[in-house]
Amino acid sequence: MRLAVLGAGDVGRSVAELAAEYGHVVTAFADSTGAVVDPDGVDVAAALDHKDEAGTVGDADPADALDADYDVLVEATPTTLGDAEPGFGHARAALAAGRHVVLANKGPVAERYDDLRALERESAGELLFEATVAGAIPALATIDGVGAERVTAARGVLNGTANFILTRMAAEGLGYEHVLSEAQDLGVAEADPTFDVEGTDAALKCAILANVIHGGGYSLADVDVQGITDIPPSALDLAAEDGRTVRLIGEVTDDGARVGPRLVPENDALAVSGTMNIVQLETEHAGRLNISGRGAGGRETATAVLADVDRLA
Amino acid sequence: MRLAVLGAGDVGRSVAELAAEYGHVVTAFADSTGAVVDPDGVDVAAALDHKDEAGTVGDADPADALDADYDVLVEATPTTLGDAEPGFGHARAALAAGRHVVLANKGPVAERYDDLRALERESAGELLFEATVAGAIPALATIDGVGAERVTAARGVLNGTANFILTRMAAEGLGYEHVLSEAQDLGVAEADPTFDVEGTDAALKCAILANVIHGGGYSLADVDVQGITDIPPSALDLAAEDGRTVRLIGEVTDDGARVGPRLVPENDALAVSGTMNIVQLETEHAGRLNISGRGAGGRETATAVLADVDRLA
Repeated sequence: MRLAVLGAGDVGRSVAELAAEYGHVVTAFADSTGAVVDPDGVDVAAALDHKDEAGTVGDADPADALDADYDVLVEATPTTLGDAEPGFGHARAALAAGRHVVLANKGPVAERYDDLRALERESAGELLFEATVAGAIPALATIDGVGAERVTAARGVLNGTANFILTRMAAEGLGYEHVLSEAQDLGVAEADPTFDVEGTDAALKCAILANVIHGGGYSLADVDVQGITDIPPSALDLAAEDGRTVRLIGEVTDDGARVGPRLVPENDALAVSGTMNIVQLETEHAGRLNISGRGAGGRETATAVLADVDRLA
Repeated sequence: MRLAVLGAGDVGRSVAELAAEYGHVVTAFADSTGAVVDPDGVDVAAALDHKDEAGTVGDADPADALDADYDVLVEATPTTLGDAEPGFGHARAALAAGRHVVLANKGPVAERYDDLRALERESAGELLFEATVAGAIPALATIDGVGAERVTAARGVLNGTANFILTRMAAEGLGYEHVLSEAQDLGVAEADPTFDVEGTDAALKCAILANVIHGGGYSLADVDVQGITDIPPSALDLAAEDGRTVRLIGEVTDDGARVGPRLVPENDALAVSGTMNIVQLETEHAGRLNISGRGAGGRETATAVLADVDRLA
């Protein structure tokens, strides 16, 4: 397949780098300030060198990437809330041109799912977005295999940064601020950790899971969200005395979607450690399925994008 | 899709019962001694009543089911070793007629994989067999999503009966024979438990995983197998003192396939409890993926069959 990759952060970069191994050709590659377009295939290594030197992958107008020859638009620009622009507009343009869209950008799927599906219905292209929920974990493919109408609930640990902090707090008896600072030093938490520790990122993934399971109707505003910034070490000590621990759990049920700290048994499937994520599905006929793995990371998330591209091929 | 279901044990029965909910029609349903065929759709409930009363689902010749109008043959007769008949012959007949084949029967895929793939190449039909490895767990769909060539190893707990016995031995400090007898009373182990406790069933699943990951070449004889019948309670006590436990682990690597008791940390993903199964995949770009769930049961395994049917649709 011919791919137009929008976004050259960790995920977009990894998609572009791995595309050839998967048998695909990158015909356009853009970041926010520049682009490189070549119908015979972009030289990805050269484009990334150009970015390291000049701050952008190429000298063409970023808008040229959307007008290039491609079969699949890979939308990997940063997640934005509300109108989810510019990601939403990119997806709309590709669908309007009858092309497929694979999203790594959570914004359009979490905030404007119904609008996206409406555009897909009018298009010859298809829309896939495995990478938007828990990185390398095939959560959406598994829901599709079970049948969304036979998934009665989903829950999971959907943010590795928050989970790393809770794991370290419990293991070392340290306070939130101390462990956050350590996580920032390790590159596990960002300088502004709000998106992760206040539950917003997990809530976006819950909105996406709720849209898939319930057939639409959810956005971030529909998810009840509580983060981990107020959890004292004493709460983790009390939980440990009872053989339990605290995890930031996202949950989708018939009652809606919510994210918040929950007590879980220490040996429970949901009690994954460090930056690991897990998605747990309750199914009508097959009991509970647990899928755990790396929920973030450029290459890991790129594998989910490329699995979607393979599904379209 | 129109389904011909061969086999009316737990899995075949559940496939027939659930088919309508999934939007399919059963046009033929056979067990070893009789069949019922109706191009407009078999009355599944009546066929199962007939089986309860007369010992067979219908009065037609079982061979009539293979000659019926159908799109997909669901092969759910008992697993046999060696030539894997009659399951292999059923699959061959369907592929020769240009029909799809979905196997729940492990024999043909574990023992004659290369023969099956050769028949598939000559056929307009496709071959799928998710249900043959770990019941409801989407192991093969996940390998397919990652790309078999990018799965560097697979391991897992692939037999619920053996895992139940090991879990109980460790939890209660009881001997193998005592726990086996308890498992038989509960219906978790069969009267002749050889297939499960000596590792044969797990080894068949390893042969199938090895065939999928390595592109063929494996049969049961290629799997190095050791069971759990010789494990003394003292070994489990020693493991527990060290924070570990014993699990019957099946493993596929570049070095081949093997099944045997292994020490695993008590809080490791592989240390699932009771009759649960887990499949762990090592991937080239996305680290480790763990998928756990119910590895047996008629309805659970039927969901894997019906997911395959949906993939063909």
